[in-house]
Amino acid sequence: MNFKMIGRFQALILLIEAVFMLPALLICLFDREFPSAMAFLKTMILNTAVSGVFLFLFRGAKREFYQKEGLLCVGLSWIVMSLSGALPFVFSGAIPHFVDAFFETVSGFTTTGATILHQVEVLPRGLLYWRSFTHWIGGMGILVFLIAIAPAFGKQDGFNMYIMRAESSGPSVGKLVPKIRQTAAILYILYLGLTLLNIFFLLIGKMPLFDAVCTAFGTAGTGGFGVKNDSIAGYSPYLQNVCTIFMLLFGVSFSCYFLLVRRQFKMVVMDEELRLYGAVALISTLLITLNLRGFYPTFSETVRHAAFQVSSIMTTTGFSTTDFDAWPAFSKVVLLCLMIIGACAGSTGGGVKCIRWLLLFKNLRRNVKTLCSPQRIQTVHINGKTVPESTVDNTNAFLAAYVLLLGLSFLVVSLDEFSVTTNFSAVVACLNNIGPGLETVGPVRNFALFSVPSKLVLIVDMLAGRLEIFPILILFSRSAWRKR
Amino acid sequence: MNFKMIGRFQALILLIEAVFMLPALLICLFDREFPSAMAFLKTMILNTAVSGVFLFLFRGAKREFYQKEGLLCVGLSWIVMSLSGALPFVFSGAIPHFVDAFFETVSGFTTTGATILHQVEVLPRGLLYWRSFTHWIGGMGILVFLIAIAPAFGKQDGFNMYIMRAESSGPSVGKLVPKIRQTAAILYILYLGLTLLNIFFLLIGKMPLFDAVCTAFGTAGTGGFGVKNDSIAGYSPYLQNVCTIFMLLFGVSFSCYFLLVRRQFKMVVMDEELRLYGAVALISTLLITLNLRGFYPTFSETVRHAAFQVSSIMTTTGFSTTDFDAWPAFSKVVLLCLMIIGACAGSTGGGVKCIRWLLLFKNLRRNVKTLCSPQRIQTVHINGKTVPESTVDNTNAFLAAYVLLLGLSFLVVSLDEFSVTTNFSAVVACLNNIGPGLETVGPVRNFALFSVPSKLVLIVDMLAGRLEIFPILILFSRSAWRKR
Repeated sequence: MNFKMIGRFQALILLIEAVFMLPALLICLFDREFPSAMAFLKTMILNTAVSGVFLFLFRGAKREFYQKEGLLCVGLSWIVMSLSGALPFVFSGAIPHFVDAFFETVSGFTTTGATILHQVEVLPRGLLYWRSFTHWIGGMGILVFLIAIAPAFGKQDGFNMYIMRAESSGPSVGKLVPKIRQTAAILYILYLGLTLLNIFFLLIGKMPLFDAVCTAFGTAGTGGFGVKNDSIAGYSPYLQNVCTIFMLLFGVSFSCYFLLVRRQFKMVVMDEELRLYGAVALISTLLITLNLRGFYPTFSETVRHAAFQVSSIMTTTGFSTTDFDAWPAFSKVVLLCLMIIGACAGSTGGGVKCIRWLLLFKNLRRNVKTLCSPQRIQTVHINGKTVPESTVDNTNAFLAAYVLLLGLSFLVVSLDEFSVTTNFSAVVACLNNIGPGLETVGPVRNFALFSVPSKLVLIVDMLAGRLEIFPILILFSRSAWRKR
Repeated sequence: MNFKMIGRFQALILLIEAVFMLPALLICLFDREFPSAMAFLKTMILNTAVSGVFLFLFRGAKREFYQKEGLLCVGLSWIVMSLSGALPFVFSGAIPHFVDAFFETVSGFTTTGATILHQVEVLPRGLLYWRSFTHWIGGMGILVFLIAIAPAFGKQDGFNMYIMRAESSGPSVGKLVPKIRQTAAILYILYLGLTLLNIFFLLIGKMPLFDAVCTAFGTAGTGGFGVKNDSIAGYSPYLQNVCTIFMLLFGVSFSCYFLLVRRQFKMVVMDEELRLYGAVALISTLLITLNLRGFYPTFSETVRHAAFQVSSIMTTTGFSTTDFDAWPAFSKVVLLCLMIIGACAGSTGGGVKCIRWLLLFKNLRRNVKTLCSPQRIQTVHINGKTVPESTVDNTNAFLAAYVLLLGLSFLVVSLDEFSVTTNFSAVVACLNNIGPGLETVGPVRNFALFSVPSKLVLIVDMLAGRLEIFPILILFSRSAWRKR
């Protein structure tokens, strides 16, 4: 185990986080919100100091770096980054309790969007900016960003690959171009481009610049933190529809956009995961629209709300334009199912991901076929290519881990004595990085009422959800910590 | 595909079912309940006639019989047997609607115990007997019974093996002795013995003979149909404790009892599944007892109710001594988790089964270990033996099928607009063959309010749960119906 190298990574994470806080600091100064400005300044100094100590302590690290190190490194980085990211909230007094601030920050970085705040409009704009920015950087991944910009790691490609695999979503992370560092850079360029496009369309609809930037951060990271108490409900139908479309776009694998840029349209159109994703979104919107007959005054309003909520929940963003907890049971259950289905792999969205369901379904069909003709060897195909058995195995293990984690968290959170639906939807909403659940954690409520143990469990769930379980699971495994 | 042989099997099933109705007919005659007696008589004649026609139509069947035929045969048999078993309820007018009667009978044979009846005490005793008897024969399996008694099938061991595998519970069905037929016979002897022991202990507690027999049938099959409106709540604490213990005993793999008879005590004590089963039951009882502080007047009453409900739900029996839907949320969630864990493989209990969770957990641990040292080949061990990869694969496919079926059923049942908890617990209770769920389908309520489409979905769930999905899944697979 290369502890020194992992330590150096933590130092870099803290350093880069301090740099990322600069815009928030400037906004605070501009708004003359000096206590908040001081909070950011303190955190930035602390980060730099700790980073310096780490770099000194872990100097002379060996270059040996394997899958195990990659997973552990990513798991630890996300905890370190969230611990530090929570400090401005605590220092400024906006969120006095550290566990609450930690919950809020983990929810930000993991692009969950579950909040413990009753009101967000009272917060200084600098803090709101930071809160939304955590979504943006968490969506694509801070380590992927590090890989894209840091020349020091650029030489060792395997090294970067392990980090990238652990932080990106989906059962198999492919390179877009032969070099990992270039792949990371391309991903961030596409990500930035789409975000700017989103801001542009929001500005056209006359959304104020600050709101537009924060909303675009929340949309791009499929996070869900907004700057208004009523999320997106107060904006015009045009702005709501812009959000619907961009949420859906950010739930698509970024490799599809890369293919589009390279004019390989056919590969995009034929992509099985994309087709499943589109079909599920469309059918769900239809079902909910039918189920909501007479719930809203006009048909167009019904479709708008249905499409918005489907897009928001399926991409695991968590914005809302209406209190869907008041919807009839069938619509709520459709949303619960969408929570678990999730977005596409290789996007910023969370959940189990469409490709995994496709793999699980195809593997199941293979099992039935094998029962019928035991002699024939069957393989699983996606997009015309044979899926390696290791990927199938890993997807199966993922499902098992997911179900076990879901059950265990459900059990612990239930100690708080809320209703079964509240507890279940809270865990599902956190584990799939969505944000709002049903009943007590519905879209117009929040997670403040949960006890500290429940919040800690939900924090683990959010991290496990964003990093797809294994980088967090490995932190609890003895064999990972063993020295070689 | 050997359709003729499958058809002959259906004929035998109908015939044997007619014989099984004889005691019910006699009870009706003894009680002078002539309409019910006529209902049984009609069904028996109809069964015999249809059986005769089938035997004539499907004469001269080839002996070729493979896994596919075994699965299809079992899947079809259970549907045929339930269709015919529902007739006495319809003919007698006790349950006028056929779908309701079919639901009740499937619930009986699959040992679910979910009922659509508001009151059971108004039913003639002959029908009550039949209702409870379906649990008993469904628990161990009617085809296993056929194998045990029918000499015609005794010669071909592979033939019987496919049937037995498809009908028995657990990921890998082992033979107790080299011959399948003898294995089936031993299983039924042990089953009968334990049932008689159960009746004996109930009689000691002064339970009337009829009640004792029916209750023992419900316990042995881990079914849950009782003969009283309030299930077991009206009986004395002694009788309730007898039920607690026997439910737990019937949730244990019958191979353990065979080992006990052969005095291989150490193998029983060291059995990993049994240990997990015992530990979960014990810990759950403790947790619920703690959670229920002050809910009942005395500590001993609390323990009694906690132990009874844990034993009833974990073994998927579904008897109740109290309205656990009124319990605090944590206790309810413990019960929901127990529903999904289930009993041991090779018992009459349902659910996912302890051994599968053990396998899923060990496979997950292996996956984490493989992430840490990718070069080393790791295997999964249970009871010191390597588990074949095909069993691990099959367990994974089972979990995927289970989750997909659960989600899909949840969605359809939600169209009835009951609460999310009602819908979810109804599907969980049927898919795991438990019986009562929470809220509208809680222990003091029933399934009558559901619409016909929901009932049909729940019927599929019950069958899929009892036969462990694949024999039902294969009915929907094109490759199974294809001619060789």
